[in-house]
Amino acid sequence: MFCVLFPMWSYIPPLRELQFVLEDLLDAPARWASLPPYADADAATVRQVLEEAGRFAAGVLAPLNAIGDREGCTWHGGEVRTPPGFHQAYRAYVQAGWPALACSPEWGGQGLPLGLHLALNEMLHSANHAWAMYPGLAHGAYECLRSHGTPELQQRYLPRIVSGEWLATMCLTEAQAGSDLGLVRTRAEPVGVAADAIESGGEVKVSGSKIFISGGEHDLTDNIVHLVLVRLPDAPPGSRGLSLALVPKILPGGQRNAVHCDGIEHKMGIRGSATCVLRFDGATGWLVGEPHRGLAAMFVMMNAARLLVGVQGLGHLEMARQNAWRYAQQRYQSRAPGRRDGPTSAIAEHPAVQRTLWRLEALAQGQRLLALATAVWLDEAEHHVEPALRGRARRLVEFLTPVVKAFLTDTAHHAVNAALQVWGGHGYLRDHGIEQAVRDSRITMIYEGSNEIQAIDLLQRKLFEDGCHRFAEVMGVIDREIEAARAEPVRADGPELQPLAAVLQAQVDALREATARLYVGRQDDPTWAYRVADDYLQAFGWVLMGWAWLRTARCTAPRRADAGYATRFDAARYGLEWLLPEAGWRLQQVGRRQARLPVSQPG
Amino acid sequence: MFCVLFPMWSYIPPLRELQFVLEDLLDAPARWASLPPYADADAATVRQVLEEAGRFAAGVLAPLNAIGDREGCTWHGGEVRTPPGFHQAYRAYVQAGWPALACSPEWGGQGLPLGLHLALNEMLHSANHAWAMYPGLAHGAYECLRSHGTPELQQRYLPRIVSGEWLATMCLTEAQAGSDLGLVRTRAEPVGVAADAIESGGEVKVSGSKIFISGGEHDLTDNIVHLVLVRLPDAPPGSRGLSLALVPKILPGGQRNAVHCDGIEHKMGIRGSATCVLRFDGATGWLVGEPHRGLAAMFVMMNAARLLVGVQGLGHLEMARQNAWRYAQQRYQSRAPGRRDGPTSAIAEHPAVQRTLWRLEALAQGQRLLALATAVWLDEAEHHVEPALRGRARRLVEFLTPVVKAFLTDTAHHAVNAALQVWGGHGYLRDHGIEQAVRDSRITMIYEGSNEIQAIDLLQRKLFEDGCHRFAEVMGVIDREIEAARAEPVRADGPELQPLAAVLQAQVDALREATARLYVGRQDDPTWAYRVADDYLQAFGWVLMGWAWLRTARCTAPRRADAGYATRFDAARYGLEWLLPEAGWRLQQVGRRQARLPVSQPG
Repeated sequence: MFCVLFPMWSYIPPLRELQFVLEDLLDAPARWASLPPYADADAATVRQVLEEAGRFAAGVLAPLNAIGDREGCTWHGGEVRTPPGFHQAYRAYVQAGWPALACSPEWGGQGLPLGLHLALNEMLHSANHAWAMYPGLAHGAYECLRSHGTPELQQRYLPRIVSGEWLATMCLTEAQAGSDLGLVRTRAEPVGVAADAIESGGEVKVSGSKIFISGGEHDLTDNIVHLVLVRLPDAPPGSRGLSLALVPKILPGGQRNAVHCDGIEHKMGIRGSATCVLRFDGATGWLVGEPHRGLAAMFVMMNAARLLVGVQGLGHLEMARQNAWRYAQQRYQSRAPGRRDGPTSAIAEHPAVQRTLWRLEALAQGQRLLALATAVWLDEAEHHVEPALRGRARRLVEFLTPVVKAFLTDTAHHAVNAALQVWGGHGYLRDHGIEQAVRDSRITMIYEGSNEIQAIDLLQRKLFEDGCHRFAEVMGVIDREIEAARAEPVRADGPELQPLAAVLQAQVDALREATARLYVGRQDDPTWAYRVADDYLQAFGWVLMGWAWLRTARCTAPRRADAGYATRFDAARYGLEWLLPEAGWRLQQVGRRQARLPVSQPG
Repeated sequence: MFCVLFPMWSYIPPLRELQFVLEDLLDAPARWASLPPYADADAATVRQVLEEAGRFAAGVLAPLNAIGDREGCTWHGGEVRTPPGFHQAYRAYVQAGWPALACSPEWGGQGLPLGLHLALNEMLHSANHAWAMYPGLAHGAYECLRSHGTPELQQRYLPRIVSGEWLATMCLTEAQAGSDLGLVRTRAEPVGVAADAIESGGEVKVSGSKIFISGGEHDLTDNIVHLVLVRLPDAPPGSRGLSLALVPKILPGGQRNAVHCDGIEHKMGIRGSATCVLRFDGATGWLVGEPHRGLAAMFVMMNAARLLVGVQGLGHLEMARQNAWRYAQQRYQSRAPGRRDGPTSAIAEHPAVQRTLWRLEALAQGQRLLALATAVWLDEAEHHVEPALRGRARRLVEFLTPVVKAFLTDTAHHAVNAALQVWGGHGYLRDHGIEQAVRDSRITMIYEGSNEIQAIDLLQRKLFEDGCHRFAEVMGVIDREIEAARAEPVRADGPELQPLAAVLQAQVDALREATARLYVGRQDDPTWAYRVADDYLQAFGWVLMGWAWLRTARCTAPRRADAGYATRFDAARYGLEWLLPEAGWRLQQVGRRQARLPVSQPG
């Protein structure tokens, strides 16, 4: 009721930040232009795309965010209505060609890099997470079909997914199968061939129930393409017996397929996104990929989706960051310590508020650099002309994906939640957007593999499985940044980057030592790594933030006459001095090998 | 939609835990019985009161919790309707005599200790935080009127507040005056006397607007007694010019007073609690306490209210704790590491989930002991027969109050939020109660003085103002616990309590050192303490948890043949080994005197 006194919750696209990260820190336009499919992605194109994306996010999506939360989706008789304005916004999105941005021209795409798609998605999710869920999964379906679909399925579905005419879903979870996909029961019966004779593209009848299907039913597109994890009749138990089937809502002949939406969930947040219960009643579908190899096909979607979820966290963080600053600069309460004039100060001058504001600032900076660096490596992993560099980029992405997903969403949600405190009691009201951001961002820690699953993936698959080979490659990237910072000239008024490099070096040393102990020690104590996996991932995330901050500090230090660069340098230094130390505490937790968990079970 | 598969969100009053803490750890019944007004508060009475309170909370309030959230309050034409069932529940509460529990028989009270009132409130808030807000403030109003009201005002209002016939509010906040009460503008014009001649009890006309008034208007009682911070015409500016006025909704003659509810807020949580905008249009009131001494009178309410808010945090934590255990023991996903049998394990066996469950267990245990210990000291501060012990108890309470308020609410909210992860995607749905608990518990970090304000209060008023005298008394309590644990006999299979005592000793040493450095260093660097106040309060909170865990471990170690005691010992050891180390990290942050905050201001 009081927002008239204060700046409204609003979105200003961080175009200068994105440009700074992509151009100054990552040299992304030049790296993209060296990849054959992206020869045209020069700096001017990238800037233009980001500007238009920002205009769309701020102008079309942001105004629908609070409405979507208030109105939610409605379900009636199997049909779902999205909140007011969502349909028009989606039409505008399709007309502007956004779904095609990072798709191959072969299928009608614009052939721009995936990194740009992720930068676009930061802005979409800042503006309206619930809305952005609908197109969010289509790109993963595109990648999955492009890699594993038969030419016939590709011809039939890819052009319309790329154009945005049709949307897509991932149907994994069942009531009894959450994190454990091995428990999936949905059946697929081959049509016209024996169970052991079915091949990729073969027709099946799908029966079973799926839950938590984002965009499983809605009024944005005429058709919805479901990619469904199923079990063929002769499938072995567990996750090695899963296949993937494409099941459209509308069959090629125009008939309605036997896919029914039995309801939508009432959720804590992203209330404008329809989370559906889907029932497949002998629905017609076709296998995508080989029988029993469904998880591998699905993982193509999931890995891209995990990076995207990390970027969703960043989107919320950026929104909280800029709005918290604006509010704190215009809200006056009490005189700040050290001030001698005036009865009150802007709360942005009170140290407790400053700690929160600079945490938001430094985290947004570090997260953006880590997410986009990973995205550019992902583009290089697919398209670099040197096979060796392709392989290296792929290994970096594999290792970093669980960290980007879990660390970004975890620290973003908690920072957004901390930001609410800046508004005081006003933050608890619906009038400002911050409480919605807390609720919306909470889901990112859960879906696409909970953050606990990511931590286990990091340790078991990414760290241990290849004898720490990929770990060493990631650490090499950090080492080189430290070396570069150390080699910078000392300024007239004393060293500057060198102490910051030393702060990071100390945590890097501690991380290497903890990793070595864990790698060796897991032989005698196989559950040790599981007990401390979350701490390990957090520590790794902070060290990667340290890398991002040191790189930013090195790049901005000489240009601090400019206020924008001065702020970036300040944020990077704040991160290294005040936030990075959490890595040390987390690594201490990783080291407590002797500390066992209790076995008793309280009631 | 799937809760039928899983245990329902439900409340089992933790009677055995409360009894264990009050009787075994605190010897509370004997200590209460030694205070003259509480001679009858023996163990049997205490148990009976707690049993009945638990029955009321679980049987009457818990079933209304989700309904209250879904329906919320409604405002129409200045009147507020509470959610279905709230009125009947309040009538049952009054009929059972609960409002009178800790009030003096002089005013119709039952004359039981305030510690018991807080134990009752843990259960009320576990079951239904929004409902418990209505009676929650009445006890503070009782204390305030009893200490500062004229006999006439006491006669008129105390019996009906004590009986629960009327409810009460605290009217502090205004749109421009949040944390900074010095900015309060609401005016009080003396009636019939000159501005400088008014005395306590004198009549005033009150004009102004207050916001965030919990229970400012509702349909639970016929009358509502507002205690309003106001400014007399000749008042000096700032917080030294504030007075307190009692302004009833209904005047003694039965007429409606000029107090209007202009609306209620739409909030993130506690949606069944009416948060009102109140407009005083020359409303009739009477001064409570001396002119310009309103803040002192109000602080009587606020200090008790701050302990209560800490206990609200504990209430949510307990609810999350017990429901998370029940869910995790019945939800099966994947085989836990180290298991060789069966395809799946209860998720309570997965180490990542165990870490969360034992965090909840240890925190609930430590919080309950700290809160009730403080409450018993509060009773002793008022009624101990030895003046020296009264003074000591008062000083302990003064020092501990900001820690109980801020540390309990902060760690409780974050632990409840972490608990949501145990339910995975189901936790994000309204079907289980955990997402509501996350939303409801969030307010406790904000109201009754934000947690940042508590941290400044701890350092500036409680630590520095008396030259660390009260600090030393609190540390003495911890020292004696460590000594007692060290003096325990070593068991046949090796030392047990001694290593745990050493863990706490290390953090106690670090806390003393950090405190001394801060105390001395603040001379040259007056903003240092403000920069690290939140970290300092957190560190202190963890050390106090360490005290609580060591005391619990010492008391339960010899009785571990009993499963209940074994679990308590396990939780205490888990707390000391896995949670207490956070104190060390926080104290590191406190020590970074050289690290400055940036002065630039991002946009």
